[in-house]
Amino acid sequence: MTTEYFELTILGTSGGPVEGANCSLLIGQISEQIDSPTTDHVCIDAGTGIKGLNDILNYYNQFKSAKDVKSKFLNTKNYFAESFYPNCPSVAAYHSNPDSIFFPNSLQRYQKQTKGTNLQIADAFMNLHVSSYLITHCHLDHVSGLIVNAPMFYSEVYPHKLRKIYGGKCTMGQLHSSIFNNHVWPDLSEVAKPIIEFCSLDADNRSWVQLNEYMEFQLFPVAHGTIESHSAEPSIYHSSAFLLNMRKSQKKLLVFGDMESDLTSNTFYLQSLWNFISPYFHQLSGMVMECSTKNMPSDRPLYGHLTPHFIISEMLRLQEIIQTYNPELTLKGLNLVITHVKETMTEDDPRISILEQLELLNDKHKLGLVFSIALPGVSYKF
Amino acid sequence: MTTEYFELTILGTSGGPVEGANCSLLIGQISEQIDSPTTDHVCIDAGTGIKGLNDILNYYNQFKSAKDVKSKFLNTKNYFAESFYPNCPSVAAYHSNPDSIFFPNSLQRYQKQTKGTNLQIADAFMNLHVSSYLITHCHLDHVSGLIVNAPMFYSEVYPHKLRKIYGGKCTMGQLHSSIFNNHVWPDLSEVAKPIIEFCSLDADNRSWVQLNEYMEFQLFPVAHGTIESHSAEPSIYHSSAFLLNMRKSQKKLLVFGDMESDLTSNTFYLQSLWNFISPYFHQLSGMVMECSTKNMPSDRPLYGHLTPHFIISEMLRLQEIIQTYNPELTLKGLNLVITHVKETMTEDDPRISILEQLELLNDKHKLGLVFSIALPGVSYKF
Repeated sequence: MTTEYFELTILGTSGGPVEGANCSLLIGQISEQIDSPTTDHVCIDAGTGIKGLNDILNYYNQFKSAKDVKSKFLNTKNYFAESFYPNCPSVAAYHSNPDSIFFPNSLQRYQKQTKGTNLQIADAFMNLHVSSYLITHCHLDHVSGLIVNAPMFYSEVYPHKLRKIYGGKCTMGQLHSSIFNNHVWPDLSEVAKPIIEFCSLDADNRSWVQLNEYMEFQLFPVAHGTIESHSAEPSIYHSSAFLLNMRKSQKKLLVFGDMESDLTSNTFYLQSLWNFISPYFHQLSGMVMECSTKNMPSDRPLYGHLTPHFIISEMLRLQEIIQTYNPELTLKGLNLVITHVKETMTEDDPRISILEQLELLNDKHKLGLVFSIALPGVSYKF
Repeated sequence: MTTEYFELTILGTSGGPVEGANCSLLIGQISEQIDSPTTDHVCIDAGTGIKGLNDILNYYNQFKSAKDVKSKFLNTKNYFAESFYPNCPSVAAYHSNPDSIFFPNSLQRYQKQTKGTNLQIADAFMNLHVSSYLITHCHLDHVSGLIVNAPMFYSEVYPHKLRKIYGGKCTMGQLHSSIFNNHVWPDLSEVAKPIIEFCSLDADNRSWVQLNEYMEFQLFPVAHGTIESHSAEPSIYHSSAFLLNMRKSQKKLLVFGDMESDLTSNTFYLQSLWNFISPYFHQLSGMVMECSTKNMPSDRPLYGHLTPHFIISEMLRLQEIIQTYNPELTLKGLNLVITHVKETMTEDDPRISILEQLELLNDKHKLGLVFSIALPGVSYKF
């Protein structure tokens, strides 16, 4: 029997305020059979799109072969070194355990197998192999790539296909009424030949939504700050987490959008989610979680985000909860990919200080988590 | 007496569907006194922001000195060659007359004078020297940079300053209600410490709006396609043109957002504008105008955009109208910078075919226009 894995490729990961390379994850399925054909992929958030994909294909050009990738990749400069931070270390320094990085990934294989320029290959990939988007929330750094790219789906070369856009009711309502409203962007869901379909999900409905023949998901609400307004009472702004499930192997991957800890939101969203996941904990291959900034003085507002301190607090709660199901269980070896780090106007990449703070707390509490800080172009096999 | 000029720097110019480097122009004033201090700049549209500026500063790094720029710049590869089109020619090939390119520009001087990384320099420039934005219309490829960058204006290093965002009533209404609505983005105009102010302009009001001590502008409405909807009659989608005026020298620069010809919109917006500009024609230093695609078969929809054919049709009308004021006048020598070319999935940059088609028609009708196809990082002195 073939074992299947999630393949998670980072298209974009920046939490702003710099635009470009903002949050976008590409997730497919790979099997042990390394040369299997390209399967249907899903995008979680779309802060970047074809430009992010094209940049990655350009980046791969420096590696001549799979063997070359394997030997050189970890020592190369990453996207942020080239763009923003002259003092960036090489790719390896962003990972507790560089062995968790998987290469060559299917994108690179696709590039080798496909003719044309990298932009043509990116276009082919997005048109042929990405048929659904899961949107965690409507903030522009999570949707701008999908919006600007959408006209590309009216391809002269590739068959017309309807993209399904999944998200919570509020997120889908806002995306339709605020963005695809014929003013900010044409409403491409209500034209003669639509290319997108908004699929609103009820956050309380605990049943699996099928994405393709091998993957399904559920949506969970999380808190992401409050909406302050002169004219109304402050209210919670909601974001989402998506729990992906491999239908055959039952492997699971939990991907969070921007969010804050229950400790700052005064809600029970994460506690509910930790309770839900506990019986399946042995099936959980990894989590993707935001960490916008390094630890801050407690009087500094976080605007609905996490810091290393709050990530570790939530992990301690998760460990406590899984142990009520099985006292033997620990988080040891669980992969945690950190995304949405906000750029700072400094010489050094804030990702490195965040990793250091996470490792320090990880050691202190003997959690044994395996941290990776997401970088565009890096793939993980979970 | 010192002569003053507009300095127009292209931050971004792509008409999509690829995201990043979308339409954004930076406009300042320069005088003959080449080492004059950096003055207050205005951004027309903001499809890219600090990332575009940072990319340009990174690009300038290949030139060691002003002399080096002058000798090498025209022969270097441009942004699109590096990113999308392997067969791109060098910068010179995008200009009818490469002498119209001005360098070194003030951005490059700013880089040489300012300490820090390029991201820090871009941050300083945007915080200290850009205090107003003119937005032609609300399509996301013209505003996404401003939105994602906005939190950067809460700088820890630079003094807090309110940015004025100018545009037509409908554009400002949509930007506020659809984008800065606390769902797509926080409403940063209605918080305790606002950083943006929406300044709605009446498109019929023919009076100058002062931007800074040396520059003022007027807004003119233009047509940019129609809004089709199942539930309502088709209606015109409006974009804008901004006529900039140097208060001292009365030099003028006309910058258009996306738009179509009166011939396809069945309106008189451009005819009115050509009539307005005619008495001031001798003060007009240049125009920035979109050309989204090369000429298309007449049955192909243009979705409210221009092609070389329609640009030349409008220029012939402009020439006819200025000649009713003064039969001696022609368009000969007028600078026309072309922006908003849509990316194509080809080996060759569509900008080159568009320039060829424009030149052919320019010659055929003996117009004598001086065409430049906008490229990120290129500056013009008008």
